Amino acid sequence: MDGAEKENELENGEDEGSICGYYSLHRLLFANLEPHLFQEVSRLLLGLNCGRPLETVVVTESAKALSSKHNFDLQAFRFQADKESLREPRVVRVGLIQISIVLPTTAPFSEQKTAIFHKLKRIIDAAGASGVNILCLQELWMMPFVFCTREKRWCEFAEPVDGKSTQFLQDLAQKYNMVIVSPILERDVNHGETIWNTAVIIGNRSNIIGKHRKVTLGNHVDFNESTYYMEGNTGHPVFETAYGKIAVNICYGRHHPLNWLAFGLNGAKIVFNPSATVGELSEPMCSIEARNAAIANSYFVGSINGVGTETFPNPFTSGDGKPQHADLGHFYGSSHFSAPDASCTPSLSRHRDGLLISDMDLKLCRQLKDKWGFRMTARYELYVEMLAHYLKPDFDPQVISDPLLHKNS
Amino acid sequence: MDGAEKENELENGEDEGSICGYYSLHRLLFANLEPHLFQEVSRLLLGLNCGRPLETVVVTESAKALSSKHNFDLQAFRFQADKESLREPRVVRVGLIQISIVLPTTAPFSEQKTAIFHKLKRIIDAAGASGVNILCLQELWMMPFVFCTREKRWCEFAEPVDGKSTQFLQDLAQKYNMVIVSPILERDVNHGETIWNTAVIIGNRSNIIGKHRKVTLGNHVDFNESTYYMEGNTGHPVFETAYGKIAVNICYGRHHPLNWLAFGLNGAKIVFNPSATVGELSEPMCSIEARNAAIANSYFVGSINGVGTETFPNPFTSGDGKPQHADLGHFYGSSHFSAPDASCTPSLSRHRDGLLISDMDLKLCRQLKDKWGFRMTARYELYVEMLAHYLKPDFDPQVISDPLLHKNS
Repeated sequence: MDGAEKENELENGEDEGSICGYYSLHRLLFANLEPHLFQEVSRLLLGLNCGRPLETVVVTESAKALSSKHNFDLQAFRFQADKESLREPRVVRVGLIQISIVLPTTAPFSEQKTAIFHKLKRIIDAAGASGVNILCLQELWMMPFVFCTREKRWCEFAEPVDGKSTQFLQDLAQKYNMVIVSPILERDVNHGETIWNTAVIIGNRSNIIGKHRKVTLGNHVDFNESTYYMEGNTGHPVFETAYGKIAVNICYGRHHPLNWLAFGLNGAKIVFNPSATVGELSEPMCSIEARNAAIANSYFVGSINGVGTETFPNPFTSGDGKPQHADLGHFYGSSHFSAPDASCTPSLSRHRDGLLISDMDLKLCRQLKDKWGFRMTARYELYVEMLAHYLKPDFDPQVISDPLLHKNS
Repeated sequence: MDGAEKENELENGEDEGSICGYYSLHRLLFANLEPHLFQEVSRLLLGLNCGRPLETVVVTESAKALSSKHNFDLQAFRFQADKESLREPRVVRVGLIQISIVLPTTAPFSEQKTAIFHKLKRIIDAAGASGVNILCLQELWMMPFVFCTREKRWCEFAEPVDGKSTQFLQDLAQKYNMVIVSPILERDVNHGETIWNTAVIIGNRSNIIGKHRKVTLGNHVDFNESTYYMEGNTGHPVFETAYGKIAVNICYGRHHPLNWLAFGLNGAKIVFNPSATVGELSEPMCSIEARNAAIANSYFVGSINGVGTETFPNPFTSGDGKPQHADLGHFYGSSHFSAPDASCTPSLSRHRDGLLISDMDLKLCRQLKDKWGFRMTARYELYVEMLAHYLKPDFDPQVISDPLLHKNS
């Protein structure tokens, strides 16, 4: 970020969803701390990659032009690994896209979807122009995040795995030789029209490699997921693509360390966490959960969140005693990458569309496994036994009581 | 922190281990950001407790006097819970102490230990004067952290569970009606003089409630734990004390989400993580792991780290190609509390002894379980099966390969 950008940012004032007029925490700190302080704060907040601050990558002029023209945030970084003697680096370029919806939720559904396609295409073009190999979109990118309404009519947005949204992305995957992870609302026609929350994995030759259905669902407050779809039945698959082994832990699944673990044990090098979540609910949690997963499982994590505020035609209540209202809150964007060495990128904007790119040398995963030995030291056998025991209705927790306590009570 | 303190801090200059002359990240940000920016940055970095910034607690004059006289950091906070209709608040006051060693590691061992006792007692007196109910000390607080040397003579520091260090603390537990968690190097005389890394739980009537032995060991770089002791054989006990159900996840165990999970399933409301770890190795990881554990398991976490740099008489190498040297690095203190609602306290100093106190309403644990439903939604049965499968030597990971990939390779 240079001085001119800094000034521009301040001139933007306090846009809805900004952080006191700044796009992100990182940019706020950059603009307000002396360089030597900013450097040390960054070390503590973002970690170091191979002992150094994370490098930025210069993006192509054409991508930069698209970002200026269509007003989306564009940032690029590089995670390096140490040099090895027997293995060459395996660098992949990975992209995350966060976008808001385009039309009001009252517009005809087909027009809402087409408008999202249209806007998304420009950002995918920028990813293509930047040579992105693997791209992941946010949860249910092809529709507003409607579950707070509890209205069933939005189910019309659901599509088969090979439906319109997939077809739209297949063309772009082919054009840009890009693997695309596409989280959609799935209609499973062959199983009685069941609805699922699903990520479709589209290969770089435009073929559908497979799908993964959200393992654990959040039903708290306004999320009401089980009103629309149930827990996924696809296990914890890792998809072996032309650019590496990837997996998808959809939204609420990030709260469950076991979920992250299973993708790791199946061999994922990059796990995406496409989300749609709002500030008041989860903002201080999101990067903690993602970074912890990357550290504990020695893989990269790409976290994507929607952005903007979506207003619905019929107000609804939120079980909090407050009056009815018509939106779920501000989706805070802030998409970012986390690495197995505890480093992470700054986040994308909190309130604008954006494309975050990172080169990552996947050799870093094994290097961290060798360094920390987490899999070797985990003693999984203890937990198979413990969990099996816990699952029994008459589970008896291991509690050691102070004998004096009971004597006197 | 008022203006005068702020100035004093800057006048301290760049003490070894400080953050550009500041005790902690929090204090650096406080001193250098405009108040409205600091407030928003704090919301993002420390979260909110019941929707508000964490409250500070005024400490007693006598505790403050001890902290000034003996030059240790003293901070106090309060985690609140929402009011309930059927349950009264259950507020406990919890303390964490971080201290450096006192004498050079070349001094007679008995003098080294006595000097630590002497210094620690002053800080425990401050905890007692503050009405702390449960106190936890850092890993192996009664000796230098010697394992980088790989020299066996330090094993002399090891003690039986009811040895001198325990006796020293039992007196203080009795005096202050305080539960004390005391992580020591244990010599298990009844099992062939085996050495363990053990936390002794001393009840508030000075009785020994029980012990827990470190579950997973870190053998990376200079830690060499298995050179001295092996993996604990005490399961994941929760200790029911006069002030609530507590557990201890010692040091390296914080890297293992399953470890944290097991203490949670056994019913812990507060899990302590006494550590001894250095900046270059783990600094950006430590609070991520603690906070993630608190969030995922709906309990409080108290993280304690040693402080200072310990120099040993005989230089040693570190398997990194660098010349021999005589210390492991700077133990970065920064002890802190994390809450189940994703809020956390600022950290204690990075380079000074310290006592961190927090009131915590343990009712917050259940409130967060009700809010997020993590236990209800976790689908543990999937993971019993998955882990049992993984443990088999012929484990076959769930991988879905792009068929085009293999056709062309």
